[in-house]
Amino acid sequence: MSAVEHERFMQRALELARGVWGTTHPNPMVGAVIVEDGKIVAEGATAPDGGPHAERLALLARGKPPRPGATLYVTMEPCSTEGRTGACTDAIIASGLKRVVVGAADPNPDHAGRGYEVLRTAGVEVITGVLERECSDLNLIFEHWIRRRTPLLAAKAAVTLDGKVACRTGDSQWITNEDSRANVHHWRRLFPGIAVGAMTVLKDNPRLTARREGDEWCPWRFVFDGLLRTVVDKNLPRVYTDEHRERTIVVTTPHGGLGYVRKLREMGVKVWCLDSATQRVSFAEFRRRCAEEKITGVYFEGGAQLLSELVRDRELDYLFLYRAPLLLADEKAKSIFSGLRPERVKDAVRLRDVRHENFGEDDLTRGHVVYPEKMMVDETMFSLRSG
Amino acid sequence: MSAVEHERFMQRALELARGVWGTTHPNPMVGAVIVEDGKIVAEGATAPDGGPHAERLALLARGKPPRPGATLYVTMEPCSTEGRTGACTDAIIASGLKRVVVGAADPNPDHAGRGYEVLRTAGVEVITGVLERECSDLNLIFEHWIRRRTPLLAAKAAVTLDGKVACRTGDSQWITNEDSRANVHHWRRLFPGIAVGAMTVLKDNPRLTARREGDEWCPWRFVFDGLLRTVVDKNLPRVYTDEHRERTIVVTTPHGGLGYVRKLREMGVKVWCLDSATQRVSFAEFRRRCAEEKITGVYFEGGAQLLSELVRDRELDYLFLYRAPLLLADEKAKSIFSGLRPERVKDAVRLRDVRHENFGEDDLTRGHVVYPEKMMVDETMFSLRSG
Repeated sequence: MSAVEHERFMQRALELARGVWGTTHPNPMVGAVIVEDGKIVAEGATAPDGGPHAERLALLARGKPPRPGATLYVTMEPCSTEGRTGACTDAIIASGLKRVVVGAADPNPDHAGRGYEVLRTAGVEVITGVLERECSDLNLIFEHWIRRRTPLLAAKAAVTLDGKVACRTGDSQWITNEDSRANVHHWRRLFPGIAVGAMTVLKDNPRLTARREGDEWCPWRFVFDGLLRTVVDKNLPRVYTDEHRERTIVVTTPHGGLGYVRKLREMGVKVWCLDSATQRVSFAEFRRRCAEEKITGVYFEGGAQLLSELVRDRELDYLFLYRAPLLLADEKAKSIFSGLRPERVKDAVRLRDVRHENFGEDDLTRGHVVYPEKMMVDETMFSLRSG
Repeated sequence: MSAVEHERFMQRALELARGVWGTTHPNPMVGAVIVEDGKIVAEGATAPDGGPHAERLALLARGKPPRPGATLYVTMEPCSTEGRTGACTDAIIASGLKRVVVGAADPNPDHAGRGYEVLRTAGVEVITGVLERECSDLNLIFEHWIRRRTPLLAAKAAVTLDGKVACRTGDSQWITNEDSRANVHHWRRLFPGIAVGAMTVLKDNPRLTARREGDEWCPWRFVFDGLLRTVVDKNLPRVYTDEHRERTIVVTTPHGGLGYVRKLREMGVKVWCLDSATQRVSFAEFRRRCAEEKITGVYFEGGAQLLSELVRDRELDYLFLYRAPLLLADEKAKSIFSGLRPERVKDAVRLRDVRHENFGEDDLTRGHVVYPEKMMVDETMFSLRSG
């Protein structure tokens, strides 16, 4: 079969994987198709929450052993370890399949390549690396989780060509276009948690749900509020009062008033009171707690102060930067990040594995954040605490 | 013939047009191919400086009348007016061609569509709009020139994700990667003129030539220097002393010392002394003078102050913004543009007809600059004059 045909079938497997977008944590999203005589005869995608893997579901959907010459396409290397669902390599070998085409290797360094080895030893031909870049991109969160056992802390921001998030007056509606904003909801749907600072809650009173095609889904909604400033006012923000309030977690410090903590809990809102030497929430403590609760990824949506603190603390793992073809050309307009003072370009914070996507005239640049060895911080920028 | 085949032949015509990149001013770059029985039998591209047009050269290259059923592909609507070279529509009709496939319409509003009409009246089938976006992009400079009779004033800048052109220390080498920097040379080759401010000359001492694949070409090199500060020092910048110095034009005001003007002219450097109420060169006067000299486009390469002045004066027509996946996250690092103070996002300067291109992990965003109706200027930013 030609490379073009391999890609065509892998595209379908990718589509199937994307169809379970955000529903498989802590498992990866995987898609699989079985092809006989150039036609797809069965399909599968990872079942939610510890259910069967894509390969197994595709085999199950076939209902009978694949014909000789059949090929399995799967976006990620089949697992070779006995988990809750049994090793997929065993199921493949047992089915009699003699050829497997894989997108990306298992991101777990302890397992990577072992699936291939087990299959090959059993006489199965294995072709790897078909649409590898797309396939590995599916498992941004899983890869981080499985390698480091901590959540992927990602941030999203919308900026002008000159890196501004708002006019000097604070006006920011709207920098990016509707397609960009719809894409934010797409990514919101992927992350188990969304986080914002207290100022963003007070200023914008956001819903923090993923809204796509009429469908609304509520992730864990984290409010970073070291002093519980969001609870002071009589008119409480909607994340504390709406129908999803039991999905809201206020992340605070021992400096947050106990009365406010009680008030929130009485309303059904969760409170994480994390150790901190300052009035600001410790991202390291937050990371630890998320790991305990098996929350594999958190999507920070602002404000600029909270995101700058994440970078200052070297705790931001991934950045989504939407950009619109606008110039504010104003030194006093708010920049997306501040608080560092690199002296050389080579000491800048960098993105790696950068991906670009266009949304009309806007674009999205995203990638993993890489910190320079020595990072010079301008502490005066952090005198006002965001949370 | 199918749309895919039309595009394939138009791609070849585009390649031919790009092959005469920068050599046809003030004429547009146009490419043409003649196809008989699904095969290209002749090719042509605009000859330099008032020479024959692409269609004519393709017909000439054929050497005999095209066979019945032959098709001419041409990136731009054939001209229908008697210029120095005669109307291309006449040549097409005389050749017996019965079908013409066109990329983009003539950007001259007085002529647009007339070529189609003349051909159709003569019984020639005309198919339009094949790879229109790519074809019209070829003639960025020509289109502006022919519609407005003034040069396209474009600017190039290289920024980080947060819109910075340099660290607070001034270090800026290198923000963008080698591929981005090579692309700058590609665009330099297109523009009849390059311009920089006095500070850039003093600081970087650039060559301001287009260097591509071992080949060096020298455009008009404009130095904006209202007070002739670049001539003071004993060690003169290389643009005044190198082998291309007769291609350097210092643009100054009546405030520049006459002794310096004489010194430059004695070395073979040209000087344009333009009327100005201030110590700064008037872009409007510069535009007028370029138009007189039939210089159809100028590519401004900085510094940030000169580019900000261009925007402040609403004289920047087009922007090339290269961007690298870096964050300086420093409020005190130099931003690409400054000097405006919009209060609402809707009062921002915008780009239209935006095009995105990737260079490895860098990207280029370019487009026509559109100014808001009311533009608020922060005059304090312009107390230090760049030129």
